[in-house]
Amino acid sequence: MLFTDFGTAGPYTGQVQAAVAREVPGVPIIRLVSDAPMFSPEASAHLLASLVDQEPMGSVFLCVVDPGVGTGRDALVVGVDGKWLVGPDNGLLDVCMAQAKEVHVYRIDWRPARLSATFHGRDLFAPIAARIARDGRPSARDVCLVERVVPRLRDLWEVIYVDHYGNAMTGIRASALEGQVRIFAGTGEFMSARTFADVDVGKGLWYENSNKLVELAVNQGSAAATFRLQVGEAVSVR
Amino acid sequence: MLFTDFGTAGPYTGQVQAAVAREVPGVPIIRLVSDAPMFSPEASAHLLASLVDQEPMGSVFLCVVDPGVGTGRDALVVGVDGKWLVGPDNGLLDVCMAQAKEVHVYRIDWRPARLSATFHGRDLFAPIAARIARDGRPSARDVCLVERVVPRLRDLWEVIYVDHYGNAMTGIRASALEGQVRIFAGTGEFMSARTFADVDVGKGLWYENSNKLVELAVNQGSAAATFRLQVGEAVSVR
Amino acid sequence: MLFTDFGTAGPYTGQVQAAVAREVPGVPIIRLVSDAPMFSPEASAHLLASLVDQEPMGSVFLCVVDPGVGTGRDALVVGVDGKWLVGPDNGLLDVCMAQAKEVHVYRIDWRPARLSATFHGRDLFAPIAARIARDGRPSARDVCLVERVVPRLRDLWEVIYVDHYGNAMTGIRASALEGQVRIFAGTGEFMSARTFADVDVGKGLWYENSNKLVELAVNQGSAAATFRLQVGEAVSVR
Repeated sequence: MLFTDFGTAGPYTGQVQAAVAREVPGVPIIRLVSDAPMFSPEASAHLLASLVDQEPMGSVFLCVVDPGVGTGRDALVVGVDGKWLVGPDNGLLDVCMAQAKEVHVYRIDWRPARLSATFHGRDLFAPIAARIARDGRPSARDVCLVERVVPRLRDLWEVIYVDHYGNAMTGIRASALEGQVRIFAGTGEFMSARTFADVDVGKGLWYENSNKLVELAVNQGSAAATFRLQVGEAVSVR
Repeated sequence: MLFTDFGTAGPYTGQVQAAVAREVPGVPIIRLVSDAPMFSPEASAHLLASLVDQEPMGSVFLCVVDPGVGTGRDALVVGVDGKWLVGPDNGLLDVCMAQAKEVHVYRIDWRPARLSATFHGRDLFAPIAARIARDGRPSARDVCLVERVVPRLRDLWEVIYVDHYGNAMTGIRASALEGQVRIFAGTGEFMSARTFADVDVGKGLWYENSNKLVELAVNQGSAAATFRLQVGEAVSVR
Repeated sequence: MLFTDFGTAGPYTGQVQAAVAREVPGVPIIRLVSDAPMFSPEASAHLLASLVDQEPMGSVFLCVVDPGVGTGRDALVVGVDGKWLVGPDNGLLDVCMAQAKEVHVYRIDWRPARLSATFHGRDLFAPIAARIARDGRPSARDVCLVERVVPRLRDLWEVIYVDHYGNAMTGIRASALEGQVRIFAGTGEFMSARTFADVDVGKGLWYENSNKLVELAVNQGSAAATFRLQVGEAVSVR
């Protein structure tokens, strides 16, 4: 599964898919997210973790939000409770690690014959992810187990993603909040609700979304447009 | 095939694909439409019907334009002339039913172990659609045949979709119009033409589109931008 | 692989995928580009060629940027160094031909039972591309070898694509430039760099992109927004 900030347009996602298919013909590929927050590995990390949580054991996630591509940062494979993440060592994989019971971290030492300076998703991560999908685990020829202090799980009290309906996901696990609390963000106030139809048309609500995060919305409207929410906007309870 | 208003961005379509693949590994999945008109099951119903019409017997359509998700509306499987539709009972499937020769309507009684309040596309419709794709028909363990009055087929004299070129599809079957009639919509006037090159660059034209609907366009321009067309805009002949 | 200007939204790409799958069930399909420059077969031709160059022998590219659909232009299959292109004869395939060592040009004479006036991608090109993917070559029942003067390869000193990060690809092969030259485009000046982090945040840079073209960018910003770049903008060295 592909989790990137490559954009829904443009050739990059298709080129990564082609690179995976070239390495392991027939491996199924799903475009999970192509518009993760650019330049923000931290917000992306929370979005990624909420999605990884929903997918079954054995899933392989090719993860690229990588403003530092071409610099010295390591490339990693991380095993989290029987799922596999492949991506840069820039914080993007940290929330997945923090919420897992069992974590194994490997550094990718393999390098392709031709490694472009700016497109490690295609040249480095795609072949590695394809081989893990085929073999069920990374190969000792490609990676090396490393010691890592697993970060502590902390909610991010910010908007981490605004979807196509204008709903704003936050980095707050819904289980961390009391059920009836009121939430404030941007110019808006959001009442607790179970579903959109629980509040009047045009009013703000928050609920535990299908990925277990606190999400801010407006019934039949756009929370982002109505209350000026964007990625990075602070969220609070009062 | 997936027909939704989930947006081309964001994780929802990918999560539905993953849910289908989890239920029936290897079943082919095509993203047909991810930007059906939000909050408008009626316009979406006309767009869906024009597309279903083009696909072969045995096709399965997972259809989600569902502003009332989490309320009491039923979940349906509908058989139309040997094709299968899975989606909410909110009008979205009505035009397909109205234009079919043979219609069978089933209510989905199966419920997953965990059903989120806001994402029935992933939790309820995806597994059902996957099983129909595998088995060729819905299972009596999942659904129950119900009586339904099939709605009458009526054209919708509105813009139902604006595409990436700025072309505006309407809910009018081209066969309902005389060939040489003039059409008015927004600030524009549209002459009958067979293809874009039949009119001067920048002029409005209408034609029977590849899905048999009346479509409004501008040769090498955007009809939507030039003549202020959006979903819901009234269309008339004079 | 699909290279089109159909847009990331809307039903067209999905309908083409369905048409391919109908002709040859199970053939793998990758959406390479869905937002090639509309109305500009020339810029699209340079983008296409840079991508074809990266993919392996045997790949089949279904190519549609076709403002003249429905007029008299021919439909082509072109073999370039063991890869196959299927698309309109309007210049879109010319750069691929120009950069290939071995070129074979075929005219598509086959016509489907029903050919819409505006959607040859679905009705004509998709079945042909599917059969080539299955058979490894076009069939003499579908196509006819024709004589063609292969165009000469020329760089296009313009922006040919702006991606989701605001990076602007040009039609200039990086190998044509001296390494340290300065580039000017829009209101911007771009220094040579190997990777984004080589210049300060907010500054313009150019580099050989992963497809071997000159690309203009801003470190952690949008070159398009900062320096007013869009497809067709002239690019120069001084």
